[in-house]
Amino acid sequence: MISTAIINVTSYTGLELLRLLAQHPQLKVTSVTARSLAGKTLADVFPQLQALAATTAIDPTMVIAEEPAQTDLAFVCLPHAAAAEAVVRLLERGTKVIDLSADFRLHDVAVYEEWYKHTHPAPALLESAVFGLCERYRERIAGASLVASPGCHSTTAILALLPAFARGIVEPDVIVDSKTGISGAGRGLTLGTHFAEANEDMSPYSVGGHRHMPEIKQELLAAARDGGHALSDIRMTFLPHLVPMTRGILATCYATLAPGAVESLSSKAIVELYREYYAGEPFVHVVDQPPHTKWAYGSNHCFIYPTLDARTGRLIVMSCTDNLVKGAVGQAIQNANCMLGWPESLGLAGAGVNP
Amino acid sequence: MISTAIINVTSYTGLELLRLLAQHPQLKVTSVTARSLAGKTLADVFPQLQALAATTAIDPTMVIAEEPAQTDLAFVCLPHAAAAEAVVRLLERGTKVIDLSADFRLHDVAVYEEWYKHTHPAPALLESAVFGLCERYRERIAGASLVASPGCHSTTAILALLPAFARGIVEPDVIVDSKTGISGAGRGLTLGTHFAEANEDMSPYSVGGHRHMPEIKQELLAAARDGGHALSDIRMTFLPHLVPMTRGILATCYATLAPGAVESLSSKAIVELYREYYAGEPFVHVVDQPPHTKWAYGSNHCFIYPTLDARTGRLIVMSCTDNLVKGAVGQAIQNANCMLGWPESLGLAGAGVNP
Amino acid sequence: MISTAIINVTSYTGLELLRLLAQHPQLKVTSVTARSLAGKTLADVFPQLQALAATTAIDPTMVIAEEPAQTDLAFVCLPHAAAAEAVVRLLERGTKVIDLSADFRLHDVAVYEEWYKHTHPAPALLESAVFGLCERYRERIAGASLVASPGCHSTTAILALLPAFARGIVEPDVIVDSKTGISGAGRGLTLGTHFAEANEDMSPYSVGGHRHMPEIKQELLAAARDGGHALSDIRMTFLPHLVPMTRGILATCYATLAPGAVESLSSKAIVELYREYYAGEPFVHVVDQPPHTKWAYGSNHCFIYPTLDARTGRLIVMSCTDNLVKGAVGQAIQNANCMLGWPESLGLAGAGVNP
Amino acid sequence: MISTAIINVTSYTGLELLRLLAQHPQLKVTSVTARSLAGKTLADVFPQLQALAATTAIDPTMVIAEEPAQTDLAFVCLPHAAAAEAVVRLLERGTKVIDLSADFRLHDVAVYEEWYKHTHPAPALLESAVFGLCERYRERIAGASLVASPGCHSTTAILALLPAFARGIVEPDVIVDSKTGISGAGRGLTLGTHFAEANEDMSPYSVGGHRHMPEIKQELLAAARDGGHALSDIRMTFLPHLVPMTRGILATCYATLAPGAVESLSSKAIVELYREYYAGEPFVHVVDQPPHTKWAYGSNHCFIYPTLDARTGRLIVMSCTDNLVKGAVGQAIQNANCMLGWPESLGLAGAGVNP
Repeated sequence: MISTAIINVTSYTGLELLRLLAQHPQLKVTSVTARSLAGKTLADVFPQLQALAATTAIDPTMVIAEEPAQTDLAFVCLPHAAAAEAVVRLLERGTKVIDLSADFRLHDVAVYEEWYKHTHPAPALLESAVFGLCERYRERIAGASLVASPGCHSTTAILALLPAFARGIVEPDVIVDSKTGISGAGRGLTLGTHFAEANEDMSPYSVGGHRHMPEIKQELLAAARDGGHALSDIRMTFLPHLVPMTRGILATCYATLAPGAVESLSSKAIVELYREYYAGEPFVHVVDQPPHTKWAYGSNHCFIYPTLDARTGRLIVMSCTDNLVKGAVGQAIQNANCMLGWPESLGLAGAGVNP
Repeated sequence: MISTAIINVTSYTGLELLRLLAQHPQLKVTSVTARSLAGKTLADVFPQLQALAATTAIDPTMVIAEEPAQTDLAFVCLPHAAAAEAVVRLLERGTKVIDLSADFRLHDVAVYEEWYKHTHPAPALLESAVFGLCERYRERIAGASLVASPGCHSTTAILALLPAFARGIVEPDVIVDSKTGISGAGRGLTLGTHFAEANEDMSPYSVGGHRHMPEIKQELLAAARDGGHALSDIRMTFLPHLVPMTRGILATCYATLAPGAVESLSSKAIVELYREYYAGEPFVHVVDQPPHTKWAYGSNHCFIYPTLDARTGRLIVMSCTDNLVKGAVGQAIQNANCMLGWPESLGLAGAGVNP
Repeated sequence: MISTAIINVTSYTGLELLRLLAQHPQLKVTSVTARSLAGKTLADVFPQLQALAATTAIDPTMVIAEEPAQTDLAFVCLPHAAAAEAVVRLLERGTKVIDLSADFRLHDVAVYEEWYKHTHPAPALLESAVFGLCERYRERIAGASLVASPGCHSTTAILALLPAFARGIVEPDVIVDSKTGISGAGRGLTLGTHFAEANEDMSPYSVGGHRHMPEIKQELLAAARDGGHALSDIRMTFLPHLVPMTRGILATCYATLAPGAVESLSSKAIVELYREYYAGEPFVHVVDQPPHTKWAYGSNHCFIYPTLDARTGRLIVMSCTDNLVKGAVGQAIQNANCMLGWPESLGLAGAGVNP
Repeated sequence: MISTAIINVTSYTGLELLRLLAQHPQLKVTSVTARSLAGKTLADVFPQLQALAATTAIDPTMVIAEEPAQTDLAFVCLPHAAAAEAVVRLLERGTKVIDLSADFRLHDVAVYEEWYKHTHPAPALLESAVFGLCERYRERIAGASLVASPGCHSTTAILALLPAFARGIVEPDVIVDSKTGISGAGRGLTLGTHFAEANEDMSPYSVGGHRHMPEIKQELLAAARDGGHALSDIRMTFLPHLVPMTRGILATCYATLAPGAVESLSSKAIVELYREYYAGEPFVHVVDQPPHTKWAYGSNHCFIYPTLDARTGRLIVMSCTDNLVKGAVGQAIQNANCMLGWPESLGLAGAGVNP
């Protein structure tokens, strides 16, 4: 068993880690932290965890500490900047770290500082940090000490567009219209997440620019370059929307097929190209009908449907994940499995909760 | 008082007409029809209407007939094709008709037959039918006998894009990513509208092409032409999505600014251009923040936020309506008011139901 | 026109007053207050109200003040204790007041102080204050200066049980299992009203005792006494539950039929007794099937279904209202209409928003 | 591995069995049936199951048959009457059966025929069938060939009240006000489960009597008898309500404490009595605060909070389950584990999906 810490366990990602690690045969939670609720037990904060005592390795009477105990592995669920500081300390004591914040996702410090409006707390670590998308970087993740797990919108959109950019079938001009459930906003209290405001409502947000866009751009440019279709930049519009559901992201992506592709590719051929790209992936499933966010509910799966809009020559790719699982915690565990040399699906198998 | 019939009153649009006409000072419902439930009373089908007896002019004990009685005005809530047949008979007896189906929205019979897959039942009426968007055609509606009220997705998207096309500030290349509540699917029973399937779910539909697209295209081309910016065609992608809420449409529209516009227009200038275009409109409100579908809940209002995506030179327009009101029945009553020479907001004033 | 103030307009009851008064032909909002957001306009706080400018008498540019201007009438939407202080000042300047707080609902100061845990701020006013249930006290409300509008759970339960106690058909032993939508918790931010917590969840609350119970008891005892069936006390259990919907209360009430009644009353006879009791009421509708909270959505109607549980001799009464309308603001306007000598349904007619 | 059949796999219980058995280490699904969709594959009917191919033992390309293949074990998800016929055939070929219908839950044929309105198809089996509540009958289930898994309302209410009746602390007079999510109504299409009808709505149903009541009564009477507090009958009112959520049942139970108990028992003592009764149970958790249905979402756990209503001497017990798991399929698997001599929680451990 690998001893594991959850840093900032009182967040929604912290809670979801407890749920998923309760099913994991090799990772044992031995330390949990949170600043504001230190001294409380897990069951004080989340009474439902009392149910785990009898049948899992999670101990609901575990006391939340201010600082983590020494562990082999740690999941960092802090906001950016605070996350980097915790990561530095964890790495110093030899703990392998999966960071769920944005602090180590962007390779270019200048881009980070432009979007996050502060000086990067630990730029020296950027070179060794690996972007935590196993579907792209599993070899590098396997040897990493620090993995930066990507954001929920980013994961869903990157998986949607990777094959298109890697194979060079689209022009560098993309619109991602992303729709997310409300748990993505976190456990903090805001008027926008009040049930009476959010229920029966839908609204765009971050219209001036959302911080997940640079991650998406970075990864699509990298995919294009590694696929032999290097691009200087991508003209990308990314617009997120809040949807009245707890979990789930649907990214609808629009791109224009490249001149050669538009003549040679049918909808069926595009599905085939995607299936071939993702062949053997345990969590990415290319389907031939519009996907539903609910298919992924509570699971680490991603469902992708790429198709040709024949009237316009546009590629439309629809991609669904659970924002808290493949969009956050499930992917973090997949990264941990990869770092530790285990099958990526260890403790993560299973279908979405349907209906 | 103008005697009024509701054809196919057992639909959601029929029910919503009863609700809104209960508040109307001049339109009196004197005849209601439905094929399958003829012989029942309104209160048999909709028990909640018992509440209207004491305080409104709606009579919940009114018997649903197979064929309408003679009235001054009729709202036709039938599906396409069946609607046209009813319209022909109503016009023959001198009734003014607002048709909520698609049968008389498209001027080009060939386009209609391509999208609706059958021969048009009454092509001779197409010339005199007026597209029921008061914001564009109030003068012609005022003299019309037959008004074709536009669809819910269409209304929301057309209002979003009219100023841009009328003023010639965008290129003829548009993506409309539309999100609708589930009442838009009607009162019929399908697995997709089962609560346990639709709740906590989101999904695109009609990916191969949705019937509201030709309406949108027709009207944007007309607006461009009338604004002196005639276009041969628009390259349009229209993709609707089902959202777990009962009412509301949010259309997010993406277009590239025309070469001249991109240099001269700021986000602020775009909002001003839109405000000037819609000045004096009782139901279209140009706002300077992302709109919420709930703002319009139960009301005839449309909220539009146009903005510039500065990184890409794209125009993004977000537009919200209640699909059953401005997207259907409210707009139909607005058309009736216009046909009868009354203020368009007669019986339609008021805010959305919030929270 | 009667000039009207809304005290604490930034609450959900304040917002709902704006919506409903926008439809009222005789009450004109001329003053709005709120402590924390004084200086802002209505449209700053509720952007959706911009839609009211063109078609209603509500002015969205009205500035929120700290203290109300002189008006003929005021609706007080403050929490208890703060409400009483505002009421005193308003009455001193000759304003008629409808108080939506609990401060003047309970006739017995000791009961108030037991449940609200503080000294009553204005006990001298208790004698002249009238409990604002028109169905019981319309004559006294007509002459009142201060009306105490009852709570949402209270209204729904009292209307459910009034006929049974007034006619003496039940024993003084009642269980009220009440289920409310989340807007009843107000616009403040709590973890319990976070969408991700409340969605797909249901839970009882205030298990140790809810403050609406003494109102219900007081009114049922009064009804029994006035009906000639005086009781010394009622053994009442009242338990509220939070339901994942924005609006709506369903009170399910259980009582044992009195020895005489159980032999003589059928389900049908009970429905008739209730219909006779509520004959002529514009807003209370006795139905003969289980009611739906949605029937009342956005309206001032209450639907009641009383029936006999033949196996046990229990009376079951199911009662539905919209907690923000008949449970709060609609009833407050009904009271205002009554105080001013107008028809009670003035500005309040109309059906619930369905679907 | 034990070969397992799912009879009527296209129901919601069938789908949930596939999800949960995908996680089970010893039960392998080798045969699935359904009448109307025979010939289709699992993935044709439930496209999301494609995700299971790579990481679980469920084969999404498995063809749905009309009749089951020979297996060691079968879960029967048919409606009553049809279920009994299938059970007879399965037992004849030596298959162990867990029946999720009501056909073998009631020991008294007359009661069954009164409530289900037809002749029992296989009364001879009633004697050997065991009521599938492991918390009561695990020894008998261990040796059974046919286990009748109880209903969702029944399980939730019985677990709530078992300790009270077994220990004789209440009078035989009980009200169960039960609230259920909509998946309990099954996958069939009805107006009542249409999203636009059920969303933002709550309503009682089966007011004249619900078929789960005789199960509850039978089991509480048996518990009282086995606890040495034999009763001749229980005066029980059971009223279910539909709540706008997909999963979850909350049963709120009201009973009067027996004369001796009311003096001796505090709320704390009642919690202790319940804790002692359920000591060691893996899935029943006695908590000391109002439980939330969401705590159980997707899990086999039941959370129970018993408390004293001090003003009335009533016992209030609140009990929460997921209607599709502990209320149906999870309990069925728990029974299977018990029949096969495995730990009851095999393949069923884990927390609810929260948030």
